Amino acid sequence: MTVPKSHPRYQSLHIRERLVSGVASGIASQVGLIAHGRGEAFDYLIGERTTGSAMHATEAAVAMLASARNPVISVNGNVAALVPGEIVELGRILDAKIEINLFYRTEERVCTIANHLHEHGASEVFGEYPDPDSTLPLDHPRSLVCEEGIGSADVVLVPLEDGDRCQALVDMGKSVIAIDLNPLSRTAQTATITIVDNVVRTIPAMIKIARQMKDPPSDRLDEIVSQYDNRETLMAAIEEICGAYSEKSGEF
Amino acid sequence: MTVPKSHPRYQSLHIRERLVSGVASGIASQVGLIAHGRGEAFDYLIGERTTGSAMHATEAAVAMLASARNPVISVNGNVAALVPGEIVELGRILDAKIEINLFYRTEERVCTIANHLHEHGASEVFGEYPDPDSTLPLDHPRSLVCEEGIGSADVVLVPLEDGDRCQALVDMGKSVIAIDLNPLSRTAQTATITIVDNVVRTIPAMIKIARQMKDPPSDRLDEIVSQYDNRETLMAAIEEICGAYSEKSGEF
Repeated sequence: MTVPKSHPRYQSLHIRERLVSGVASGIASQVGLIAHGRGEAFDYLIGERTTGSAMHATEAAVAMLASARNPVISVNGNVAALVPGEIVELGRILDAKIEINLFYRTEERVCTIANHLHEHGASEVFGEYPDPDSTLPLDHPRSLVCEEGIGSADVVLVPLEDGDRCQALVDMGKSVIAIDLNPLSRTAQTATITIVDNVVRTIPAMIKIARQMKDPPSDRLDEIVSQYDNRETLMAAIEEICGAYSEKSGEF
Repeated sequence: MTVPKSHPRYQSLHIRERLVSGVASGIASQVGLIAHGRGEAFDYLIGERTTGSAMHATEAAVAMLASARNPVISVNGNVAALVPGEIVELGRILDAKIEINLFYRTEERVCTIANHLHEHGASEVFGEYPDPDSTLPLDHPRSLVCEEGIGSADVVLVPLEDGDRCQALVDMGKSVIAIDLNPLSRTAQTATITIVDNVVRTIPAMIKIARQMKDPPSDRLDEIVSQYDNRETLMAAIEEICGAYSEKSGEF
């Protein structure tokens, strides 16, 4: 069924439907839908916009990826359903590998997601080929990684990650960039750079910045990264949420 | 997969599984899962407990239903999946009709939900029989109502309602009781009485209160209702959420 454009929450409902059809085609999972709903609530609290601190974190993230030796973008079901073309484009500009990593992993789902990414222009999709041949220290299918991909990556972009996987990557000495709308989540608090924003706004913003940043001297990139303070970003995000919430309450 | 009772989020994960199996059996919709995720986030913010102001609103809601001429409980997919027996029991105690009203309406889904409610003891289920024979002023299948049910109701309990349907009911001069974990949502702000709580806690609480309130003099019920101030309740809920959030940020 089509949501009428007159509906006040048309945009949000439209994104939601993209995810629901992702479940129908086997890309996203039902538990992924619930996670999306949680994200919707936090996005609502932050005012459904990119805050200044989120944009600052996004710039640092792109600089970190651009100066990485082996950057990898980790893709799960929700990311593949929401921003498939954008992920492929970002990987192309930054020369970053794309690797499928799922909480609810089946070979069939990996294959469906890989095909979906190929349809959106991806040439190589790690996790499909090569197959995972290494593991993170976690008791779960999401521990499976490719040695050539996440296994040997120095920087990993993990949009919509779960907390202990993020922790495992950091413990292995990797720099982890997370996109998470809840600045108090374990993922947000563990990542090297946390972008407190909606993935449907962040990935396009990263593409834009990556294009502008193309081939700057590497010491300029290092400077952007070294000046970045994730704790400051998280504190600002928490303040934004409290502020936006108080403002909403004020209107009432 | 079974979640062990020792898991710190057992209750929340257990509820989530009830909903996922509701989708499998055709009772709940996938979009309902997303809505549930949003609720989870707000419930997390409010501390996953019934606040004093929510309990106050719940008492006023039961008094309003108990003194109504034609009270109706509107049931959607999530409500049917989460608290089917409790809804039937509440309707029985309060002599309130039960009517199925769906955002994503198909005859098959109405039938599946009605059967589910019958299995939980419901005798009559409006929307199944009689069929909807009236409409609310909305451009959507959820506008379909039964004249004998919601169409002529003076008080409607709409757990987990969407904003413009709530508005339409209020515009028709009905008293609307909403259960909504976001005190700033359009539904919460539009309803006559808003219970800012999780439906799995609210409906059992309403049953308990309804049993205690059985046959009190009607002027006592009127007094409870007339003393109730929804604006005050919403302000208290907003303060609870901000307070709980500040506390969580303080730990960080």
